[in-house]
Amino acid sequence: MRQSAWKKRRKSVSDQWRLLVECADQEGLVHKITGVLYRAQCNVLVNHEFADLNRSRFFMRTEFSGSIARDAIIDELRQILPPESSVRLICPGKKRLVIMASREHHCLADLVTRCVYDELDAEIAGVISNHDTLRPLVEMNGLPFVHLPHEDVSRDEHERQILEKLDELQPDYVVLAKYMRILGPEFVKRFSNRIINIHHSFLPAFIGAKPYHQAWERGVKVIGATAHFVTNELDQGPIIEQQVINVDHTHGPKDMARAGRDVERMVLARALRVVTEDRVFLNGNRTVIFD
Amino acid sequence: MRQSAWKKRRKSVSDQWRLLVECADQEGLVHKITGVLYRAQCNVLVNHEFADLNRSRFFMRTEFSGSIARDAIIDELRQILPPESSVRLICPGKKRLVIMASREHHCLADLVTRCVYDELDAEIAGVISNHDTLRPLVEMNGLPFVHLPHEDVSRDEHERQILEKLDELQPDYVVLAKYMRILGPEFVKRFSNRIINIHHSFLPAFIGAKPYHQAWERGVKVIGATAHFVTNELDQGPIIEQQVINVDHTHGPKDMARAGRDVERMVLARALRVVTEDRVFLNGNRTVIFD
Amino acid sequence: MRQSAWKKRRKSVSDQWRLLVECADQEGLVHKITGVLYRAQCNVLVNHEFADLNRSRFFMRTEFSGSIARDAIIDELRQILPPESSVRLICPGKKRLVIMASREHHCLADLVTRCVYDELDAEIAGVISNHDTLRPLVEMNGLPFVHLPHEDVSRDEHERQILEKLDELQPDYVVLAKYMRILGPEFVKRFSNRIINIHHSFLPAFIGAKPYHQAWERGVKVIGATAHFVTNELDQGPIIEQQVINVDHTHGPKDMARAGRDVERMVLARALRVVTEDRVFLNGNRTVIFD
Amino acid sequence: MRQSAWKKRRKSVSDQWRLLVECADQEGLVHKITGVLYRAQCNVLVNHEFADLNRSRFFMRTEFSGSIARDAIIDELRQILPPESSVRLICPGKKRLVIMASREHHCLADLVTRCVYDELDAEIAGVISNHDTLRPLVEMNGLPFVHLPHEDVSRDEHERQILEKLDELQPDYVVLAKYMRILGPEFVKRFSNRIINIHHSFLPAFIGAKPYHQAWERGVKVIGATAHFVTNELDQGPIIEQQVINVDHTHGPKDMARAGRDVERMVLARALRVVTEDRVFLNGNRTVIFD
Repeated sequence: MRQSAWKKRRKSVSDQWRLLVECADQEGLVHKITGVLYRAQCNVLVNHEFADLNRSRFFMRTEFSGSIARDAIIDELRQILPPESSVRLICPGKKRLVIMASREHHCLADLVTRCVYDELDAEIAGVISNHDTLRPLVEMNGLPFVHLPHEDVSRDEHERQILEKLDELQPDYVVLAKYMRILGPEFVKRFSNRIINIHHSFLPAFIGAKPYHQAWERGVKVIGATAHFVTNELDQGPIIEQQVINVDHTHGPKDMARAGRDVERMVLARALRVVTEDRVFLNGNRTVIFD
Repeated sequence: MRQSAWKKRRKSVSDQWRLLVECADQEGLVHKITGVLYRAQCNVLVNHEFADLNRSRFFMRTEFSGSIARDAIIDELRQILPPESSVRLICPGKKRLVIMASREHHCLADLVTRCVYDELDAEIAGVISNHDTLRPLVEMNGLPFVHLPHEDVSRDEHERQILEKLDELQPDYVVLAKYMRILGPEFVKRFSNRIINIHHSFLPAFIGAKPYHQAWERGVKVIGATAHFVTNELDQGPIIEQQVINVDHTHGPKDMARAGRDVERMVLARALRVVTEDRVFLNGNRTVIFD
Repeated sequence: MRQSAWKKRRKSVSDQWRLLVECADQEGLVHKITGVLYRAQCNVLVNHEFADLNRSRFFMRTEFSGSIARDAIIDELRQILPPESSVRLICPGKKRLVIMASREHHCLADLVTRCVYDELDAEIAGVISNHDTLRPLVEMNGLPFVHLPHEDVSRDEHERQILEKLDELQPDYVVLAKYMRILGPEFVKRFSNRIINIHHSFLPAFIGAKPYHQAWERGVKVIGATAHFVTNELDQGPIIEQQVINVDHTHGPKDMARAGRDVERMVLARALRVVTEDRVFLNGNRTVIFD
Repeated sequence: MRQSAWKKRRKSVSDQWRLLVECADQEGLVHKITGVLYRAQCNVLVNHEFADLNRSRFFMRTEFSGSIARDAIIDELRQILPPESSVRLICPGKKRLVIMASREHHCLADLVTRCVYDELDAEIAGVISNHDTLRPLVEMNGLPFVHLPHEDVSRDEHERQILEKLDELQPDYVVLAKYMRILGPEFVKRFSNRIINIHHSFLPAFIGAKPYHQAWERGVKVIGATAHFVTNELDQGPIIEQQVINVDHTHGPKDMARAGRDVERMVLARALRVVTEDRVFLNGNRTVIFD
């Protein structure tokens, strides 16, 4: 994650911290890690650990307060942890989002409301769309709207334009809030594990296009939505959140889509809450979420 | 439960009726059908209709009371309905079930309790299993248990033995309550639209074997169960009921299976409630359920 | 949204109709009512009936299309129905809402989005608030915001001011979207059965002030929200919609309130969907909802 | 909890342990407690902590394996913990339940199935009932059924008889599975925090008798069930688990009761799972549940 002036600003604020550790599992890790914090006279507020015995991986998230020397703490942790551990010591603050959308408003409008009214620990750096439809919604909230049409440009050129804009906006996360185009491998690689998509089905059911039509054809009694990290396998990335809603024989594909919109906005909002509060770890193609 | 002259018993009892009509859609059907009942001085208690505009099919279920001449009413209805209509005039009463199971107890035990204590409008004519494991559970409830092992016989011969037993037991419906073998086309044909299966996933996700292992591999946050009619396409028959339950990263495949068992028994019981109360119509590969 | 000749507009548009009948229960009502429509060559699309046997009341909602003489149909219906029946023949169209709110944004913002983007069959005639906090949210959507502070005026005078404004705005329904003051009997009477409130608990639990604090004190594992019609008994009016969400010991009152906000906006939106689509009947202090 | 021959048996089995600590909150507790286990070369499998900042109480549950000297570990823990801490070091094993029921079968039948088939970490020492109705269900499972009628004896004498039987059966927990009588203060005191009741409403709504009738009168759209510890205030004890189910205007009190039975058995089974796995702490009139 590149550092910007914007980021420095949030560094100085407080003595609240989030420690995120991921490493090979071994005995005594909780004791050793909490020992570092205890000796530094930190006050642990919340603590979560998980050991994945299949993959022998250990995950820990700790919220604590204290006046610490950040780099010293990290050094000390590295000394007690196994090699190749991941240690992140994060000062809580708003994450910076760029939202990509196409023509549907519901997820975007919900996220804008939540960010503007501090329901999500995030701020929207800008909205990028391949259509101009949602400009009024974005601009009336005083947020930058960037229209990058996909017509008359190659896919590569279109993605190059988006990446250029993203370089400028410096997001922590890119959120696909009903962005209806598939992103190429180069794009995904550039924002590895930092692109979050809302898919309008209970994955892995109804992968691909027109999931509500597929769901109706199959005659399901429950439809869902899935928020997941984007990888290069379509609709196959690690799942963050899923919810469902009941439907019945009176629901045609359009009714299912209507019912589904409420699930979609809820699922995406919940996924972003845990992501922006640094509660999500990747564990292979799965997620560990401390909530 | 004594094996009695059950079919006769349920014919004579009462003046309560369920009328089930399915036909090509056309105008005025509700008016015409209720007219037949009104002129026969029947008292309509509940009425449900649905017109599938895609397939131009009309479905109606009416509960009414009255001292009627059953055949005369059916004749009169046939005269006002389009050709090739389906008209069923059913006297409410316990449906007769044969349950097929393998080694898992949870769905079977739940169904036995519900039938014995009149929670379901059904009685169990017998339980057929390819294992001997569940015999005590069945026999202590005074129900016939038939062990038909699948070892040392061909698949065809095994199914022939089961069909022979079913011919004897005369079920209205065959319930696969965790019966872990696939039934052949001849078998399915014999009980067309009368075999109900509980599948341990939110279909169409995780079709086939080991769905909980598949779900864990995929890292889903919600698991489910599906009750459906059995057709010759594996796990593709019309869905009757689905429900889900939340899981998280601490659930391994075994924990998912444990959580899933509660969903399975609930979903199968709900499906059988609507089936035994004659609330389910088939509509192509979907169901119409009036509840 | 421009203040236009909206009432006229929705009268003339289409040959789509909603018939709502409520009357004393008697035999043959469905047959007689559908007969009137059949003879007028109307095409019934959806039909729902319910007979409350305790109160001997009959409720019916029918969607149909046809070029009808509206008054003639109503006359004909009155002739076949019992005395003192209620017959409404409504041309579908946007209902006109006035929303009252105090300082919390979440329900209001959600309703504004849904109305602006045609997710709800409603338009917002204006927003009235006893605070000025939510003005930007309302005005940036081009909607009238009326600030009527409650300080320095008597309760009666405050309500008189609001009623005056409502007389001007002519709403079909008044929606209390987190309006934190209790309305007097005169006010409620003026908009009898037309005021809808969202209460932040699973009524009848936690009636009155600070429901989330009450819920936390009681140690509940599930919190909820209730949308209901307002009557002169506080939090006792007919319930339209309720939903709940799981909480646990880590949720303090503030966390419960945060979790609850998502249930509140969802419950209010669902309640308004059925209200604006004319799906809700009052049945004593209960509701009959055809959905 | 009194020690019995039965209890000694389960002590010797394994090197799996559950440590439950409750004490005044102070800094470094996790570090100190895990230190004791680390130095004893125990392998921590799962760890949960919670600090209630309102009451300044700390709760911790740890599953670990190791060949330990039980008393030595407890001594060592007591030295590092604040005074008046509660330390329990439990060898996992089946909890011993006595179930009290009246005439309704559904919760009892579900618990019997779960205990017999090892779905719950519990065994049923016996069933006590004020009616003889459920005897066959219990005895066919080879479990003792004790009929203690409440007619013709005083309330005190009736409870004395039950207590005498409980003294003999030596349960870890007494489960009220639809036992329809209120227990006196002496009784509750004897099994303080060890009596679990299933109440057929979403408490605190519909306290007292006939909750489904109350719910129907109020016109709720959701009904629920609550499992809670019994205290001397009726329906006011600490809540363990709650769930709900949707209902609508077609549900009379009997239909609500039917729908409610499924919630009741599910809620009671979930509550007993966390109780028997030593996952539940009392925290004033609330519970802390590590699951």
